[in-house]
Amino acid sequence: MLTTNPFDDDKLREECGVFGVSGAEGAAALVALGLHALQHRGQEAAGISSFDGTEFHSYRAMGHVAGNFDRDEIIRGLAGEVACGHVRYSTTGETALRNVQPLFADLSSGGFAVAHNGNISNALRLKRDLVRRGSIFQSTSDTEVIIHLVATSSYRSLLDRFIDALKQVEGAYSLIVMTPEGMIACRDPLGIRPLVMGKLGDAVIFASETVALDVVGAEFVRAVDPGELVIVQGTETRSIRPFASVAPRPCIFEYVYFSRPDSIADDRSVYSVRKAIGAQLAIEHPVEADLVIPVPDSGTPAAIGYAQQSGIPFELGIIRSHYVGRTFIQPGDKVRHLGVKLKHNANRGLIEGKRVVLIDDSIVRGTTSLKIVQMMREAGAAEVHMRIASPPTRHSCFYGVDTPERAKLLAAKLDLGGMTDFIHADSLGFVSIDGLYKALGEAERAAIRPGYCDACFTGDYPTSLTDQDELAPVEQFSMLEERVG
Amino acid sequence: MLTTNPFDDDKLREECGVFGVSGAEGAAALVALGLHALQHRGQEAAGISSFDGTEFHSYRAMGHVAGNFDRDEIIRGLAGEVACGHVRYSTTGETALRNVQPLFADLSSGGFAVAHNGNISNALRLKRDLVRRGSIFQSTSDTEVIIHLVATSSYRSLLDRFIDALKQVEGAYSLIVMTPEGMIACRDPLGIRPLVMGKLGDAVIFASETVALDVVGAEFVRAVDPGELVIVQGTETRSIRPFASVAPRPCIFEYVYFSRPDSIADDRSVYSVRKAIGAQLAIEHPVEADLVIPVPDSGTPAAIGYAQQSGIPFELGIIRSHYVGRTFIQPGDKVRHLGVKLKHNANRGLIEGKRVVLIDDSIVRGTTSLKIVQMMREAGAAEVHMRIASPPTRHSCFYGVDTPERAKLLAAKLDLGGMTDFIHADSLGFVSIDGLYKALGEAERAAIRPGYCDACFTGDYPTSLTDQDELAPVEQFSMLEERVG
Amino acid sequence: MLTTNPFDDDKLREECGVFGVSGAEGAAALVALGLHALQHRGQEAAGISSFDGTEFHSYRAMGHVAGNFDRDEIIRGLAGEVACGHVRYSTTGETALRNVQPLFADLSSGGFAVAHNGNISNALRLKRDLVRRGSIFQSTSDTEVIIHLVATSSYRSLLDRFIDALKQVEGAYSLIVMTPEGMIACRDPLGIRPLVMGKLGDAVIFASETVALDVVGAEFVRAVDPGELVIVQGTETRSIRPFASVAPRPCIFEYVYFSRPDSIADDRSVYSVRKAIGAQLAIEHPVEADLVIPVPDSGTPAAIGYAQQSGIPFELGIIRSHYVGRTFIQPGDKVRHLGVKLKHNANRGLIEGKRVVLIDDSIVRGTTSLKIVQMMREAGAAEVHMRIASPPTRHSCFYGVDTPERAKLLAAKLDLGGMTDFIHADSLGFVSIDGLYKALGEAERAAIRPGYCDACFTGDYPTSLTDQDELAPVEQFSMLEERVG
Amino acid sequence: MLTTNPFDDDKLREECGVFGVSGAEGAAALVALGLHALQHRGQEAAGISSFDGTEFHSYRAMGHVAGNFDRDEIIRGLAGEVACGHVRYSTTGETALRNVQPLFADLSSGGFAVAHNGNISNALRLKRDLVRRGSIFQSTSDTEVIIHLVATSSYRSLLDRFIDALKQVEGAYSLIVMTPEGMIACRDPLGIRPLVMGKLGDAVIFASETVALDVVGAEFVRAVDPGELVIVQGTETRSIRPFASVAPRPCIFEYVYFSRPDSIADDRSVYSVRKAIGAQLAIEHPVEADLVIPVPDSGTPAAIGYAQQSGIPFELGIIRSHYVGRTFIQPGDKVRHLGVKLKHNANRGLIEGKRVVLIDDSIVRGTTSLKIVQMMREAGAAEVHMRIASPPTRHSCFYGVDTPERAKLLAAKLDLGGMTDFIHADSLGFVSIDGLYKALGEAERAAIRPGYCDACFTGDYPTSLTDQDELAPVEQFSMLEERVG
Repeated sequence: MLTTNPFDDDKLREECGVFGVSGAEGAAALVALGLHALQHRGQEAAGISSFDGTEFHSYRAMGHVAGNFDRDEIIRGLAGEVACGHVRYSTTGETALRNVQPLFADLSSGGFAVAHNGNISNALRLKRDLVRRGSIFQSTSDTEVIIHLVATSSYRSLLDRFIDALKQVEGAYSLIVMTPEGMIACRDPLGIRPLVMGKLGDAVIFASETVALDVVGAEFVRAVDPGELVIVQGTETRSIRPFASVAPRPCIFEYVYFSRPDSIADDRSVYSVRKAIGAQLAIEHPVEADLVIPVPDSGTPAAIGYAQQSGIPFELGIIRSHYVGRTFIQPGDKVRHLGVKLKHNANRGLIEGKRVVLIDDSIVRGTTSLKIVQMMREAGAAEVHMRIASPPTRHSCFYGVDTPERAKLLAAKLDLGGMTDFIHADSLGFVSIDGLYKALGEAERAAIRPGYCDACFTGDYPTSLTDQDELAPVEQFSMLEERVG
Repeated sequence: MLTTNPFDDDKLREECGVFGVSGAEGAAALVALGLHALQHRGQEAAGISSFDGTEFHSYRAMGHVAGNFDRDEIIRGLAGEVACGHVRYSTTGETALRNVQPLFADLSSGGFAVAHNGNISNALRLKRDLVRRGSIFQSTSDTEVIIHLVATSSYRSLLDRFIDALKQVEGAYSLIVMTPEGMIACRDPLGIRPLVMGKLGDAVIFASETVALDVVGAEFVRAVDPGELVIVQGTETRSIRPFASVAPRPCIFEYVYFSRPDSIADDRSVYSVRKAIGAQLAIEHPVEADLVIPVPDSGTPAAIGYAQQSGIPFELGIIRSHYVGRTFIQPGDKVRHLGVKLKHNANRGLIEGKRVVLIDDSIVRGTTSLKIVQMMREAGAAEVHMRIASPPTRHSCFYGVDTPERAKLLAAKLDLGGMTDFIHADSLGFVSIDGLYKALGEAERAAIRPGYCDACFTGDYPTSLTDQDELAPVEQFSMLEERVG
Repeated sequence: MLTTNPFDDDKLREECGVFGVSGAEGAAALVALGLHALQHRGQEAAGISSFDGTEFHSYRAMGHVAGNFDRDEIIRGLAGEVACGHVRYSTTGETALRNVQPLFADLSSGGFAVAHNGNISNALRLKRDLVRRGSIFQSTSDTEVIIHLVATSSYRSLLDRFIDALKQVEGAYSLIVMTPEGMIACRDPLGIRPLVMGKLGDAVIFASETVALDVVGAEFVRAVDPGELVIVQGTETRSIRPFASVAPRPCIFEYVYFSRPDSIADDRSVYSVRKAIGAQLAIEHPVEADLVIPVPDSGTPAAIGYAQQSGIPFELGIIRSHYVGRTFIQPGDKVRHLGVKLKHNANRGLIEGKRVVLIDDSIVRGTTSLKIVQMMREAGAAEVHMRIASPPTRHSCFYGVDTPERAKLLAAKLDLGGMTDFIHADSLGFVSIDGLYKALGEAERAAIRPGYCDACFTGDYPTSLTDQDELAPVEQFSMLEERVG
Repeated sequence: MLTTNPFDDDKLREECGVFGVSGAEGAAALVALGLHALQHRGQEAAGISSFDGTEFHSYRAMGHVAGNFDRDEIIRGLAGEVACGHVRYSTTGETALRNVQPLFADLSSGGFAVAHNGNISNALRLKRDLVRRGSIFQSTSDTEVIIHLVATSSYRSLLDRFIDALKQVEGAYSLIVMTPEGMIACRDPLGIRPLVMGKLGDAVIFASETVALDVVGAEFVRAVDPGELVIVQGTETRSIRPFASVAPRPCIFEYVYFSRPDSIADDRSVYSVRKAIGAQLAIEHPVEADLVIPVPDSGTPAAIGYAQQSGIPFELGIIRSHYVGRTFIQPGDKVRHLGVKLKHNANRGLIEGKRVVLIDDSIVRGTTSLKIVQMMREAGAAEVHMRIASPPTRHSCFYGVDTPERAKLLAAKLDLGGMTDFIHADSLGFVSIDGLYKALGEAERAAIRPGYCDACFTGDYPTSLTDQDELAPVEQFSMLEERVG
């Protein structure tokens, strides 16, 4: 099956995006817009929960935000001035609706809804202990562990129970929680996954990226700090920082690929960082060529940077179909090899006889790079040089990013020469890890306490990985697709 | 909205049917057939769980068995030689998929699936206690209480934990439970709801009614006894009776309406009992008339009994459309009053100028009876005499039957004369409560320890009704319809 | 694939039902109700066309009336005081939407919609001629021939063109036509298929059966005469009879099976005729037995007649599931042989040790009869005697009834002894052809000009069969299922 | 309703794309791929017809190619080595399936399927005559006129009948016709709409654009000439030119917007022409500015040309969401004004304080331009200069392009100053008509017989417009949406 799905690219995939609103009439409609702007962070499923002062309401669906959360009857059903939502890409095989967030539970303190971006790296061990004590899990999501820790905590107040729970979990989490007493947004002590705060009139807004603030017309206030809990009651906010302070390690790959280029991450324009990486790449890996061509669309900002630095003209040598939003299952065996062109086509008139520099943001398995290089050659390119706007991806991520097992990562298997051969390029260059930090305004990567989580490039994981070190228990229950109506 | 749904009748509604198989290859396919035969016990939703020796599988869907559980890919996904299923009619407003049974939980002892016919009459009180201790409920079903009681029991073995749980619940339950160690079928100490056991080759089968055994070609072995747990491992069975012995009180309404006429309930043919009630009715309430006409289809056996006893010819004076299986929402206001005829039509040629005796099984609100009498008059009937094959229904049921609140029961509001006037009949007669027991082979209803639960007629409830005596807490969470795909 | 579809019976199948209204506000809503009452005449597809004085509107759908024509937006879209509709069962493999009626064409005289019950027996020859002269057919329906004959007629007025068309066609037709000038209902000169006229207030109504008049609350006026055209403008009607007069030959099978028992066909109650056939059967084929059991539901009236005549008690020995309205595709191979019981189940308690007389309306292939007899034997019947309320079906119908090819008709292959053996009965008896005419009030079947079309029993076809005598041309176009939205 | 549909832009819309294959095994699979590549030419519906040597097969569906024509069972049903297909955008209100092409008819010569890009400008007059003579139309498509002209032609051979038909029609047509004798591709004498020919092995391919050849891996052979009929039998082709020779007038807007940039139209790279227009625009309308920003995606090639000519850096100042492929109906009134940002968002970090030149391909109503300018201002742009890569669009198109009525065209209502004010820009410049011809390699637009149809800019229509000069008759039939299954 060849597809034109835009997400069948050879890319790492962000697992989730979250969005929350407190203090706005029709909060759920704003959440729907915000989630639409975060759709690139999770295309598999989406959900919104709201609280109307008395009751919680929830709607979750497989598929995109559009087509589900643009139905009037759905939004009307999600009444209240407080709402939060979630878009999800699943990394496991388990895609049932019961795993779609926000997760909800009726605790003795009242309703408790949670939307989570990240991954708890000791979830399996915690779950085993909880089940032994009588807890019953309704999902296979790591997030549910947090809810059970809150439910069974021996502290009295809900806030204390929540902090008690967070202190037991390891890993990455940006959370938006809704309770009858208010909304809580928080980020793990290392701030691995992003979370920003905005204002729309009096309403308080949280989102994974600033682009979601733009879309709802909200003003960007600041990032939620690593280790910070922001507690909102109506439109009033207060912060607490219950964790020992550590140096933050936000995910560097947000700059490379995950975030939208029009987002501002920790005060930096993502677009500008990508252009700077491209310029750095031109310095580190110059080449004599006629055209700089982005692999659309994620390679474009770096390609502009490369072209401006090198003086080689930027041209659209690969045209991307607009109609790749839905999977096209290619019919018949005969035409199977033709599939890649459904998505990308060489701009033949431009390429013929030219030496081209292709700019892409990253290489994971290398399969798409190979096809793109071949497409350039078939269109008559004289030379094909590939430049990559990130260092070689050599390690899996355990913090909420979908990475293939290490054995499938091209850079974990082959050296530069091997990779160049594999993708049939005339030359191949990756930006260096120091070059990447330079594009972010630092002189180089600090050997001790570097400013970002760059484990996928370096293998330097900032937390312990409890579950990885134990045997993953076999999930013994399979829920088939279910049907309503 | 007028509909032709066959279940918009003025009837009490059985809430559930259960079916289980242990020790048969392709067990889920048998369960699908069995549930189809029990469809009259619950049309709203259905589910099947199976266990393949390692993993549990489950599929639940809103709607009928046909259209959901006759899809090959679904049945193939429900692998294993052990399976159980459930059909459901909801009595509460909550119709979400998460309430569809079998319910499933991953306990520390492994998977635990349960299908339940009946109603736990102290479920709300038990739930409140469990939530206070940290349990998180995934459904609003009373059945889930049993699972949490098992999960948090301080006993060691799963069987002891299960018995511990059952000893805390009040009310009616016929349960089929699946665990990695085997299947358990059990019936509450009073045996309020039915449960029978059969054999198909070596395989052991449990079902709410014998008709489901017939449909899969199984042999009827015996009813599960009130208070009995039948434990099946593979094809081996053993029984335990952990409760103090009490006189059974099976539901008498199963004979009046719930069970299919071709079922055998506690060694009695339901069809024969209904004919005997009809004959008793002819003795208690004779009338000079030309025709005995059943209100189709549930009044037919009693009408045959009435006709044979009275010598008045049995005729089809009301023709029922075959096409009432799905709701027909009547379009437009103009034609609203015509709706009832979509379902039933008078056999005009037969009725004109005749004195007719209509036989129906019961009257709940009286609305349908009124329409039927009017239809007879419009077709030219000279006299219309209504005879009812059960005593007046005056009390609500709290054991798994959908009854309207008392204020809507015609017989709770009006005396015989008032009811006769309300339905515009020339005369009206109900079989007496003693007559009903006579049709069941007893001399009369015993004042002390009568042989059946007849609370809907007498108000004599055989258990305490804890939740009825406390205030029902407001459910604070509303899950909208959800979507897959 | 075993199914529980109620129409997988071993029955002949009526192809169509028609219903028309002129002069009633919201005419389409009445048509929807009328078609629902005629659903037994065609379950595959349905359509309604309306005329609002300026524009024609149309909606056609695969499937039942309920679920399609009970949607408010559909009925609202079918504006106007004139409307007609059609239910259809297809006899050919071609089931595309473009064949669903009413068919519509924009003629030079304006719109022209037609709903047809019957079959044109020279349609293929006429079509070939029309195509040769440049006509383009949009369906494979024989009915479209009539429209093209009207379009290309050399007469001037629309009525003359329509009569010109009818004079060229052979076979059976009950038609309801809508034009800007009014509605025309007509019946072929032999009156093979039924058509009745009714009144609802001032509105004029046409329907295939009186039961559809009952359902909309209309009064039965009279049958449309064979060879009559009733022309309606608003609520005014006039009749013309453009054909030479011949003795009518209405279809006798309408009394045996097609019509609903509560219909009045040509002044006779269908129910009473069926009871009379049953009584005649008891006279012609008496037997000593304990129970008379109908094969539900179509055998019931004849069984009542048989029981009353013979004095043997009528009992429900076979219980029919209510849930057979939709197909249940039986999952898995293992349980394939169990399928028939999904639909019918023996009332075991009643049958055991008894001599039973089964009454069915007809035998076509004999496959169902065999299963029913076996079911009785498995339930312990001492003897099983089958009695059939029609003569042996030995010939195909070419007038709008779905009959298998002759080679598949049991009675065309085997004599009485052979059929008795095939179905494993102890005895088998069919009512005689003279007995059938007796039940209809005649002394016997007249050898010359019998009063009914009984070709399926006698092979005596009342028209020539042009297309049958020529080679059916290969249809060279296959339209796959199509999709909206 | 605000939507993120990519086609709610303020753009003219091409109505159709066609694709045909003769002589390739599994031809329909190739057609599906080709249509996917032409999806931008018609998003409303698609259809494919095939011929297997004996029978024609057809499948048509509302919606995109993906989701309909990537289903194996559909492609398998479209058997044969000859197939053609069509994508459609409807310009009229009539969107029923019966208008989806290829249209098909059974003529006396056998099947006849036709896919048409263009518009017959005397279709209504021809239809009126045909109906008067007895033809019955099944669609409201102008294309069907051609089929009826063929069916009723007095010539003998199919080819003569087809030419006879073409000689009677006026307007624009690129046609692919399938008959049992072979495939015919043809282009109207002026060659208004494009059509190219390619080869894949021995197979002959026709397509609206070369990009569709690329996608199936075919080699571009040449454009079909204006007035040429290419007749293909198997893999053999021959040409006839039955029309008097006239100077061609291909549509100039294909270069401006309709064609994909990676297509080659009449030997010119569309991408290069667009860059040349951008460069010409920089010469004609220079401005001092900091950034050149394309309105994505159609303005990008011209923006690159403008940037290269002017030396002002090309930057992505507007980010387009990837998730606009499906309509997002914005929920609730409160957030209505926020809608446009769902689709486009300003790259705020880049824009702030900068003087920007926006490049778009055309302005139709001006509504989107206004929103884009405002978005730039809200993001802090110091100056906003709009440059348009086509002359002002002042006239409707009657040759198969969806243009609003003249009264809605901004340039038909306002002069340059008025337009500049309307969109709130600091300055506005359109490329001149002579500049546009320069970009196409000509010195200027020839006053007499210019090389292209540029009627939308100049009002100089190359054919007579018969139907425009007569009153459009009211279509008297409305077919509601229909349902299968």
